[in-house]
Amino acid sequence: MPVGTKGTVKGLTPKELRAAGVQVVLGNTYHLYLRPGPDLIREAGGLHAFTGWDGPMLTDSGGYQVFSLARTRRISEEGVEFASVYDGSLHTFTPELTTKVQEDLGADIAMVLDECPPANAGREYHADSLRRTARWAERSKEAHGRPDQALFGIVQGGLYPDLREESLRRTVEIGFPGYAVGGLSVGEPRSEMLETLSITAPKLPSDKPRYFMGIGDPVGILEVIALGVDMFDCVLPTRLARHGTALTAGGRINLKNAGYRRDLGPLDPECSCEVCKGYSRAYLSHLVRENELLGHRLLTLHNVCFTVELCRRARAEIVAGGYDEWARAWTARYERSG
Amino acid sequence: MPVGTKGTVKGLTPKELRAAGVQVVLGNTYHLYLRPGPDLIREAGGLHAFTGWDGPMLTDSGGYQVFSLARTRRISEEGVEFASVYDGSLHTFTPELTTKVQEDLGADIAMVLDECPPANAGREYHADSLRRTARWAERSKEAHGRPDQALFGIVQGGLYPDLREESLRRTVEIGFPGYAVGGLSVGEPRSEMLETLSITAPKLPSDKPRYFMGIGDPVGILEVIALGVDMFDCVLPTRLARHGTALTAGGRINLKNAGYRRDLGPLDPECSCEVCKGYSRAYLSHLVRENELLGHRLLTLHNVCFTVELCRRARAEIVAGGYDEWARAWTARYERSG
Repeated sequence: MPVGTKGTVKGLTPKELRAAGVQVVLGNTYHLYLRPGPDLIREAGGLHAFTGWDGPMLTDSGGYQVFSLARTRRISEEGVEFASVYDGSLHTFTPELTTKVQEDLGADIAMVLDECPPANAGREYHADSLRRTARWAERSKEAHGRPDQALFGIVQGGLYPDLREESLRRTVEIGFPGYAVGGLSVGEPRSEMLETLSITAPKLPSDKPRYFMGIGDPVGILEVIALGVDMFDCVLPTRLARHGTALTAGGRINLKNAGYRRDLGPLDPECSCEVCKGYSRAYLSHLVRENELLGHRLLTLHNVCFTVELCRRARAEIVAGGYDEWARAWTARYERSG
Repeated sequence: MPVGTKGTVKGLTPKELRAAGVQVVLGNTYHLYLRPGPDLIREAGGLHAFTGWDGPMLTDSGGYQVFSLARTRRISEEGVEFASVYDGSLHTFTPELTTKVQEDLGADIAMVLDECPPANAGREYHADSLRRTARWAERSKEAHGRPDQALFGIVQGGLYPDLREESLRRTVEIGFPGYAVGGLSVGEPRSEMLETLSITAPKLPSDKPRYFMGIGDPVGILEVIALGVDMFDCVLPTRLARHGTALTAGGRINLKNAGYRRDLGPLDPECSCEVCKGYSRAYLSHLVRENELLGHRLLTLHNVCFTVELCRRARAEIVAGGYDEWARAWTARYERSG
């Protein structure tokens, strides 16, 4: 799911996202709540009508940004008070409020308010936090009243297997149509992330979507898919693009590197997106060096197409029964050259 | 002609320009000479192949930027020495060099090297300058060797009718397949610009294209068309877009103004471009306020579509014989509301 933080996947139109095969677009409740505000978006007919994206859409609860963006915030049983990143004004997110805001935004999937503590926050902190998150999840579900919108629960618990298990048990007991694994991919070593996911994902109900929050690099995507994850989001493909980096089957390439200045070949010879078919590395390198809007736009489009195509291929390999072998070979090539 | 300063009309693809009905795209020799350099563009097969725009293209000689961007430059009979706006390195543009560079860039129309002095530079200065510009024009023509590329001459002479006439006579005597009027729209009052154009344009050969350099606002376009101008370029429609201003039949509107925050209507109800059909003023206002790439892109697309459509309509009115009346009514409405 490409991330449309403020109601737009930076630089791309809904039409381009559709053509790329994007299945779900993510919006950030934190940003949209502060600007332009849920009242305006509700009045416009919801995020779909407001942005022109008519496919499935997911909004997070805003909790992640409260914890990652605010210099200070005050957590209580009631919710979390924070200062706006835009103007310093004070706001309080409660489970009831973020549920209501997400109903106004009108995405197809909404998320419960959770706390996402740093991986190294300590066992005691994680234990208290996951229990509060579970109580918040209950309140979110209680407050949720929009039958055309699915509300997903979130499993926390840091890197502690027993706390993960407790969080999972509490969350599944409340009962949701889909479950996310949160609090990972937040700075811990990749091996610990995968280990924790590997003991968590299999215990999630197999008949409900499993959503891993915050992964978007190609190798990471293949790794979490192998552990049973169905959905994931990350700003990485689009953010890298704005910094001049393209994802290719042969690894990441940064178009600011001198070697691409005179390279008249396509961005990724194996990719069939309109960027790879229509422009050379030399031209894209020129656009990126000159900080041209079109450079950001074209690299973003390619990175989104590339990631969607990777997922399409992964799905086909799962169906064909050869996923593990294919993913190993794909990853080896990507990492060797990248 | 929308301006693609550095080999891209900022934010738009060639495909979008084609769909908008753009007939000629302009490139700036000054910038392309410095970055990425004419050698690379020639190697790529010229600007058309490099940028992917396969329609007609015009490059200026680079002279205008030398005079508008450089803090210091030294003009001699030979040419003009200047410091690069990018890194301060010293370069000299001669008529021979800018002609050669434009042959490498490979646009369909190239321009002679001219000096574009400030309108208030004084009579003596303008007289000397236009004669040197005429000598440069002769050398440009002499140096020009690409038969698939048209080289246009440029008339200077400031706001002095007799100097304009002298410049025109000298330039037409050399003989070019098209003529530009330069040195206007550089800060002088609009009335003086039009007065000077009105005594210049009619004396240009009627069987050759007349190009007015540097006008792009809707009212100005209609005014110079009325005086017999066939071609014009300006960054205004695209630059305004990046500052949040849209051109509409009801005048300019700045989407940062509070009134558009909750305006769910289309940008210009009379425009049929994909921006006006697909997005609301409220959404565009949100994008512009948040400085989102998509906002710059969509407003740029609209402003280009709007300007092209205005010219298409102007052409139809000329053919139908009702241009003056139509242009008066169009302008009155645009200026009343804007």
